[in-house]
Amino acid sequence: MSTITPAALQSERPPIIPNSFNANQPATIRLYPLSNYTFGVKETQPEEDPSVIARLDRLNDHYEKHGMRRTCEGILVCHEHNHPHILMLQIANAFFKLPGDYLHPEDEEIEGFKKRLDERLAPVGSLGEGNKAADWEVGDCLAQWWRPNTETFMYPFVPAHITRPKECKKLYLIQLPETKVLSVPKNMKLLAVPLFELYDNTQRYGPQLSAIPHLLSRYNFEFV
Amino acid sequence: MSTITPAALQSERPPIIPNSFNANQPATIRLYPLSNYTFGVKETQPEEDPSVIARLDRLNDHYEKHGMRRTCEGILVCHEHNHPHILMLQIANAFFKLPGDYLHPEDEEIEGFKKRLDERLAPVGSLGEGNKAADWEVGDCLAQWWRPNTETFMYPFVPAHITRPKECKKLYLIQLPETKVLSVPKNMKLLAVPLFELYDNTQRYGPQLSAIPHLLSRYNFEFV
Ligand SMILES: [Zn+2]
Ligand SMILES: [Zn+2]
Ligand SMILES: [Zn+2]
Ligand SMILES: [Zn+2]
Repeated sequence: MSTITPAALQSERPPIIPNSFNANQPATIRLYPLSNYTFGVKETQPEEDPSVIARLDRLNDHYEKHGMRRTCEGILVCHEHNHPHILMLQIANAFFKLPGDYLHPEDEEIEGFKKRLDERLAPVGSLGEGNKAADWEVGDCLAQWWRPNTETFMYPFVPAHITRPKECKKLYLIQLPETKVLSVPKNMKLLAVPLFELYDNTQRYGPQLSAIPHLLSRYNFEFV
Repeated sequence: MSTITPAALQSERPPIIPNSFNANQPATIRLYPLSNYTFGVKETQPEEDPSVIARLDRLNDHYEKHGMRRTCEGILVCHEHNHPHILMLQIANAFFKLPGDYLHPEDEEIEGFKKRLDERLAPVGSLGEGNKAADWEVGDCLAQWWRPNTETFMYPFVPAHITRPKECKKLYLIQLPETKVLSVPKNMKLLAVPLFELYDNTQRYGPQLSAIPHLLSRYNFEFV
């Protein structure tokens, strides 16, 4: 927030405006301030697997029964101080993740994804009164991450000579409406992390989350 | 290249195909092998500025006269072994850059960009016979990098509280046709760098080039 009065902000030298520079770009995205959103609490959602090994075992079972696992996560964007912020879940004051999960194998992609977003964030109790199910505006696919083997590493491409990846995780832009009510599981925190904090910060956020500024860089934003 | 015969590659257990997983994605991009392209040589194109200081000085002059500098670079994609490769210029056996340059201030964006690509890569001499000018298929904008001040740092977002960035650099996907002839300035090499080499390799390629795998990860490719 600036404490300079609008009149004092008027420069005597208005900027020179270059020729237009918005060819081949997606539509401008309108962002609302974080304060427009209301956050409640809901029941704890424990991790499905007690260990990394258990998680990879379950992935392997899934692959054997249903083929490649399809995972969907949402990039929910709002703003503070006219700078984009991403809504992220923090678990046990430690690692961060995006809302979303693997799809149930029988589910269609977007419907299955909305169901998973509802499980994680749809409002409950009195906060949820009047809330519609599956009320998410799923936008462009922003990235795909591939898991070539039943291992923890994922890559933003199919590695050479891999013909049967075990999992594909897609990230989608979720356009937040002007206002929205969300309920967050008790064992998680929902944080609004600014792009400048994610950028070049693989150490803290890992390769997937720290790449989000790159994925959003082709969009222009309008801050209201 | 695999030396296993096609018959031996047939598995007794065909993979289980999951439900479809291509919602909200751009059209699949057809990639041709690097060997489809012909490379010639043309005259040396020396750096415009003798030093970093001279470069920033010139940027400052440009800003004062014409406003924010508009720079356009192309991501030209082909494949080897069914893995995407990016065509990059290497200068003096040292640093890498994408084909493209800042636009002349009076030029319209896409036309001005094609002119810059022609200067750098259009075939000359007998190789250029029959070549049309501006014969580039400029696709989606994949990224924008902003230079907030007359400094070397650029960011994939407009930093908070910056209202007059000095430069915006846009990266565009360039769809290469089935065959193409290019001439490369004598002081540069044109290299096809695989995505797996760029990925997570900021040290060698810098923050802009090493992010290319992220920018392309939402596309599916067809290798012909
Ligand atoms: Zn502020
Ligand atoms: Zn399953
Ligand atoms: Zn090979
Ligand atoms: Zn100029």
